[in-house]
Amino acid sequence: MRGKIGVFNKIPIESQDDLSIAYTPGVAGPCMKIAADGALARELTIKRNAVAVVTDGSAVLGLGNIGPLAALPVMEGKALLFKEYANIDAWPICLDTQNSDEIIETVRRIAPVFGGINLEDIAAPRCFEVEDRLQDLGIPVFHDDQHGTAVVLLAALLNACRVIGRDPSELRVVISGAGAAGTAIAQLLRCVNFDQSTCVPVEDVVVCDSQGAIHKNREGISPEKEALLSYTNRHDRSGTVHEVLEDADVFIGVSKGGLLESDDIKRMAPKPIILAMANPEPEIMPDIARAAGAAIVGTGRSDFPNQVNNVLAFPGIFRGALDAGATAIDGTMKLAAAHALADAVATPVPEQILPQPMDRTVAPLIAEAVRRAAIGMP
Amino acid sequence: MRGKIGVFNKIPIESQDDLSIAYTPGVAGPCMKIAADGALARELTIKRNAVAVVTDGSAVLGLGNIGPLAALPVMEGKALLFKEYANIDAWPICLDTQNSDEIIETVRRIAPVFGGINLEDIAAPRCFEVEDRLQDLGIPVFHDDQHGTAVVLLAALLNACRVIGRDPSELRVVISGAGAAGTAIAQLLRCVNFDQSTCVPVEDVVVCDSQGAIHKNREGISPEKEALLSYTNRHDRSGTVHEVLEDADVFIGVSKGGLLESDDIKRMAPKPIILAMANPEPEIMPDIARAAGAAIVGTGRSDFPNQVNNVLAFPGIFRGALDAGATAIDGTMKLAAAHALADAVATPVPEQILPQPMDRTVAPLIAEAVRRAAIGMP
Repeated sequence: MRGKIGVFNKIPIESQDDLSIAYTPGVAGPCMKIAADGALARELTIKRNAVAVVTDGSAVLGLGNIGPLAALPVMEGKALLFKEYANIDAWPICLDTQNSDEIIETVRRIAPVFGGINLEDIAAPRCFEVEDRLQDLGIPVFHDDQHGTAVVLLAALLNACRVIGRDPSELRVVISGAGAAGTAIAQLLRCVNFDQSTCVPVEDVVVCDSQGAIHKNREGISPEKEALLSYTNRHDRSGTVHEVLEDADVFIGVSKGGLLESDDIKRMAPKPIILAMANPEPEIMPDIARAAGAAIVGTGRSDFPNQVNNVLAFPGIFRGALDAGATAIDGTMKLAAAHALADAVATPVPEQILPQPMDRTVAPLIAEAVRRAAIGMP
Repeated sequence: MRGKIGVFNKIPIESQDDLSIAYTPGVAGPCMKIAADGALARELTIKRNAVAVVTDGSAVLGLGNIGPLAALPVMEGKALLFKEYANIDAWPICLDTQNSDEIIETVRRIAPVFGGINLEDIAAPRCFEVEDRLQDLGIPVFHDDQHGTAVVLLAALLNACRVIGRDPSELRVVISGAGAAGTAIAQLLRCVNFDQSTCVPVEDVVVCDSQGAIHKNREGISPEKEALLSYTNRHDRSGTVHEVLEDADVFIGVSKGGLLESDDIKRMAPKPIILAMANPEPEIMPDIARAAGAAIVGTGRSDFPNQVNNVLAFPGIFRGALDAGATAIDGTMKLAAAHALADAVATPVPEQILPQPMDRTVAPLIAEAVRRAAIGMP
């Protein structure tokens, strides 16, 4: 079908006058106004509603480093969802470079047209540096694979806790996966870079990579994992993911399919929460996890209950940020999004801790919560 | 109204299945195909119909160097015209740099999404270098202020010659303006960088800048004007524009309003052709030129006959180039566009040497001519 999105015209060209207004000489008016006051671009151009979906094609879905051209269908899909759920005009930007400095300078150079930048499918650790260094751009720059995933995960965890009557801050959590998503989830659970007055951290979070728990006596760990350690694994647990799961309350998987077995679930604390988001094969299949005692199971898949799907969060988050004229999507806004998403399920039950991804009522609820958080409204 | 264009979705999201096809996991299929064969991006993505309208904001309309943000309304207008006349999905890219190397490398980096690059409102001489060095990009890169203007001008001249029964190659032509448009017009009239078998050059072309005729004994002329000299002013005429107009058959103005007076026209050869395209004030007003003996007068304005308007050319040129899968818009394609545009006026008369800019039949005619030229069809 040659693509999922297209451009449409908001004004008709039916007469010579229409042409003169839309193009030369009429267009000189808004140009002069913006030249005198750049803030007017929000009122007089597409900027206020335009988001660039930017990738370097280095970590596309589960396909890996397939490059910018092959990543385009995913970016088009993302743009389609922005439109469908939040009426945002998103345009794919697939960069023919995988160098952090070049990605950053290119985003800076193309920024004038856009009101926000959605970074997408950029491999860790590059994604951390790219996002961090672009926070001074003056418009929100948000890596959805990190923070969108973390927001939906937190909403799932909040509602899972409602179902089983637990306080999230007291849970013992094991995260499998120390890449983009795992790191952002750990930060959100631990209230890292957040206004501490509004965020109650989960005390006990251990992050595992393919070699097991990240702990302070492990040799040769990367700077990114050193940073992770500064706010996780306070009891300095070591061992494989199977070993540290012993007596844990929550398993969060953003790693690889088939990682866990029934016995892993049985070694956890009673009635654990399992959020196994590897795609297409979860870290453990829901029926096996439930048979082994799991109270609640979520996955990344649409054919099981409790799908943890980023589309639940990013359209509303950007809608709210754009409407507020926010210059960043900060921790308070992410928390507001997670709570609004959790609250969108009136009565959570084990088979429904999240709304359906198709539910159109969700994005406006998140947008309003994020907008209010952005402008400091309670 | 917050902008002239928006994004629309080509496929509906009405069910979980739609979502799975448009986004994950269904989108993995086209990604894998393109990863295996990049050429499939033309069939499976927006690339084939997507054009970037790229500016650095350095020479916007008659407003000058107003910067990338203030240039956005013009780029939106351009995108609107691409859609309206040729159903092309064009997206504005306003670059926060006015450095040639940075413009070039940024266009290279964002190229994967696009099937063509329309450079717009970039000041001379930077525009020459930027366009030249991007010709190896693998997709058409076309500075409309140069070549779009030149194509429409040539069409106007061809039909003016039909009206007065002259052979264009024998005319004595004076061009006022040695910037982007003036240079491209001189090149097109002189068949520079063209397949000589298909192009009959105008023999006698003199280009003037604000100091008068560009001739070989003038001191301190720039490298760009040195280049111009290699194919213009074969009789080495010197003097002001007023002086070199003596006995000329054609005046082409891409310079400044009010440059000429009645006496200038009277000094020209009998029944001269005047194409005075400075905006909003032409180099000479049509009524004055006609009273002084001009046979045919065209301007850039919609309120006079014979408007030389780029919208007559660029939508059809890009449509034809995209449809052909062309890797560049070469001289043969530009000539084909100019002839198709001239031929779109069945019977040229002094008050109509060009179609109306609102005429929707023109772009398809140009597109077909350009497509055939691109694939080597007669």
